[in-house]
Amino acid sequence: MEKNIPYKIYLEENEMPKQWYNVRADMKNKPAPLLNPGTLQPMTAEELAGVFCDELIAQELDNDTPYIAIPEEILGFYKMYRPSPLVRAYCLEEKLQTPAKIYYKFEGNNTSGSHKLNSAIAQAYYAKKQGLKGVTTETGAGQWGTALSMACAYLGLDCRVYMVKVSYEQKPFRREVMRTYGATVTPSPSDTTEVGRKILAEHPGTTGSLGCAISEAVEAEQKLDGYKYVLGSVLNQVLLHQTVIGLETKAALDKYGIKPDVIIGCAGGGSNLGGLVSPFIGEMLRGENKYQIIAVEPASCPSFTRGKFAYDFCDTGKVCPLAKMYTLGSNFIPSANHAGGLRYHGMSPILSQLYHDGYMEARSVEQTAVFEAATQFARVEGILPAPESSHAIRVAIDEALKCKETGEEKTIVFGLTGTGYFDMVAYEKYNNGEMGDYIPTDEELAKSLAELPVVE
Amino acid sequence: MEKNIPYKIYLEENEMPKQWYNVRADMKNKPAPLLNPGTLQPMTAEELAGVFCDELIAQELDNDTPYIAIPEEILGFYKMYRPSPLVRAYCLEEKLQTPAKIYYKFEGNNTSGSHKLNSAIAQAYYAKKQGLKGVTTETGAGQWGTALSMACAYLGLDCRVYMVKVSYEQKPFRREVMRTYGATVTPSPSDTTEVGRKILAEHPGTTGSLGCAISEAVEAEQKLDGYKYVLGSVLNQVLLHQTVIGLETKAALDKYGIKPDVIIGCAGGGSNLGGLVSPFIGEMLRGENKYQIIAVEPASCPSFTRGKFAYDFCDTGKVCPLAKMYTLGSNFIPSANHAGGLRYHGMSPILSQLYHDGYMEARSVEQTAVFEAATQFARVEGILPAPESSHAIRVAIDEALKCKETGEEKTIVFGLTGTGYFDMVAYEKYNNGEMGDYIPTDEELAKSLAELPVVE
Repeated sequence: MEKNIPYKIYLEENEMPKQWYNVRADMKNKPAPLLNPGTLQPMTAEELAGVFCDELIAQELDNDTPYIAIPEEILGFYKMYRPSPLVRAYCLEEKLQTPAKIYYKFEGNNTSGSHKLNSAIAQAYYAKKQGLKGVTTETGAGQWGTALSMACAYLGLDCRVYMVKVSYEQKPFRREVMRTYGATVTPSPSDTTEVGRKILAEHPGTTGSLGCAISEAVEAEQKLDGYKYVLGSVLNQVLLHQTVIGLETKAALDKYGIKPDVIIGCAGGGSNLGGLVSPFIGEMLRGENKYQIIAVEPASCPSFTRGKFAYDFCDTGKVCPLAKMYTLGSNFIPSANHAGGLRYHGMSPILSQLYHDGYMEARSVEQTAVFEAATQFARVEGILPAPESSHAIRVAIDEALKCKETGEEKTIVFGLTGTGYFDMVAYEKYNNGEMGDYIPTDEELAKSLAELPVVE
Repeated sequence: MEKNIPYKIYLEENEMPKQWYNVRADMKNKPAPLLNPGTLQPMTAEELAGVFCDELIAQELDNDTPYIAIPEEILGFYKMYRPSPLVRAYCLEEKLQTPAKIYYKFEGNNTSGSHKLNSAIAQAYYAKKQGLKGVTTETGAGQWGTALSMACAYLGLDCRVYMVKVSYEQKPFRREVMRTYGATVTPSPSDTTEVGRKILAEHPGTTGSLGCAISEAVEAEQKLDGYKYVLGSVLNQVLLHQTVIGLETKAALDKYGIKPDVIIGCAGGGSNLGGLVSPFIGEMLRGENKYQIIAVEPASCPSFTRGKFAYDFCDTGKVCPLAKMYTLGSNFIPSANHAGGLRYHGMSPILSQLYHDGYMEARSVEQTAVFEAATQFARVEGILPAPESSHAIRVAIDEALKCKETGEEKTIVFGLTGTGYFDMVAYEKYNNGEMGDYIPTDEELAKSLAELPVVE
């Protein structure tokens, strides 16, 4: 029946997307605007220009244009590591003895080890086009920092990365990849910024957080001439660039007449999930089709499933604009025992609005169950997945096992965002039986949510 | 002119090789047979059966059959990570401002991070088919051990890896990947074998060598019921399996009417080089075509360029058969400061004979020049290469720069065997300016070569 569907679908070059898809154009309820942290009024393009590049601001604020052309230079860079394969998980299906058909879109076949490169090259390109010397950013687990370093090396831009201290120390090899690509990597909080010094004074011995590293990167940008700040997730512009994932996925499925029933992605700040599901949700918004969309988040950082849909600060230092999103509070820090990424306290405003409007559901999964799925997947599908990606694997397996019970032949598509080659400390913990589950108590969450800013 | 040649050539599933190519069938001067270390007589199939699987022995001894069918099950596994792309290095060409056209066959898009999986799955498959419980092996840098662990996990075989102690300690993450795939990893030399205990007694504090780990893995196999020993390079069977690299490369080039002038591969034991060049050398042997073939080896372990073509032991413990090959002497150990693999004292008997007969040339390159090429390549082509693969990059760049001087538009193809994600300790040394070059003196080589066994 499906004789002609290859194990791995690679699009031909001429089938690759030439435009990004802007899901906001099809949303009736647009995502709420970013607010100025001082005035609590919507940020204007002029205000945003203090931090971001001009063309990226235009993309950030554009709620109307459905398709935005990908510049030739970015298409050229995409050809370096794209198209990514859409893989039929035949071996996993057989292992599970499920009637479900499982596909995964694999974004890990590049040195950044994840999908982050899709937006890194776009942001670096617009910075270069604007005549800038360099960019500043933060990185947690390290994928984003690596991706940006690669993009900057390619374009000849300086790249300064503030890396969450706990990752900097636990993942020296990630740091070294960035340095090989010519980036400067500073552990955060550091004494190189005012906000860093303040945080260090208040919390001596802290191992840092993403929200804190964002504050430092933004401050650093503002003190450097010819630099702008760039961010790897959460923002509308990032989701826009990442739609190359979903557009390729859809093109590959359409090419072989495959209609997915369930689409699953892991969710931290939302860049991968948003990129994967946007074209499918677009069809739902336009009333053309119906899919079950599942966001998967760690039980240790459950912004969708236990957070509040409200305006909040995007960073710990409260220097960035406020965003309306599902949030756990900008002071929330997941347990240090939580491995991998997906540690951000908030969520993409676009995805938050779509979730709020019922276009997707969300599940939280526990860490040991995630690594169990990761190991099972690695052994039959060959790829050792990133802990982040493995959240999606967990729920894909759960859904496939449900099909086994019901006999349904559902088609499940999930996003395999990257590889776990720099996460072996976490795998070692799991292999040694030393990994636990760390779920915040209701009291903890209530405490950090009580500190949300009052906006309305 | 070349408008229709994509950036990356992926073969369609139906274009992938269904047979391995046995270059020995076309060699007038066959590689010399393995000798029994006791009697110094050619090893019979019966004698080899004490160590190797039956079908692999047949492949090892087959000097006549030009094409050997790849079993369906192995083809199925190959589909998991193959075809590998043949990439046009447009960005590198532009960076070098060379009129040369550079292509590379990239074997790193799988969790083992290298081409080693091509033979690992074949050897594990034949072991499984013979009803064995498991296999033993050694690994140096770790690629082979990882590949074999993956193949064994897939087939449900037990896998016991003796890992050279210095690698075991410097690359804990490699070890952890193997453990994630269910393998048992023992640092070598160990006290789990007689030969290990003997070496430890004679050289207390030794950090091990590949030759020593081979001896331990062979001894372990002989003491375990239902186990055989498998090896990741040097042997004829391994080169046979690895021809899938060269056959895919040739099919991709032929598809677009590209004729290479120069083909370059790094050479340690010869598995990648032999796999890449065999189909091309086959055409030379049959008088159909002419190519310039270049083997690249580290100046710190220069078996082709400074070794002797003679019978030698394959392992330090002298329990394995003797092979006629270019060798530095089985007691030769490259400087501990040499990074990455390509540390074996000998070379594939097939490649040794072909080199001896003038079908390829060899160059040795120094470590810092290799990392310079690796970094240059990473920054423009996106892939952070393995130190081993970077030997080929170095010479590909050198050849492209020659073309720049002469104006020749040569087509250069090189093998990019893998990624360097587990080699960041070496990159860190290079990034910090702490890397040196370690070339054995004539006296050192004369000493280890003086210990060659007397065979004729």
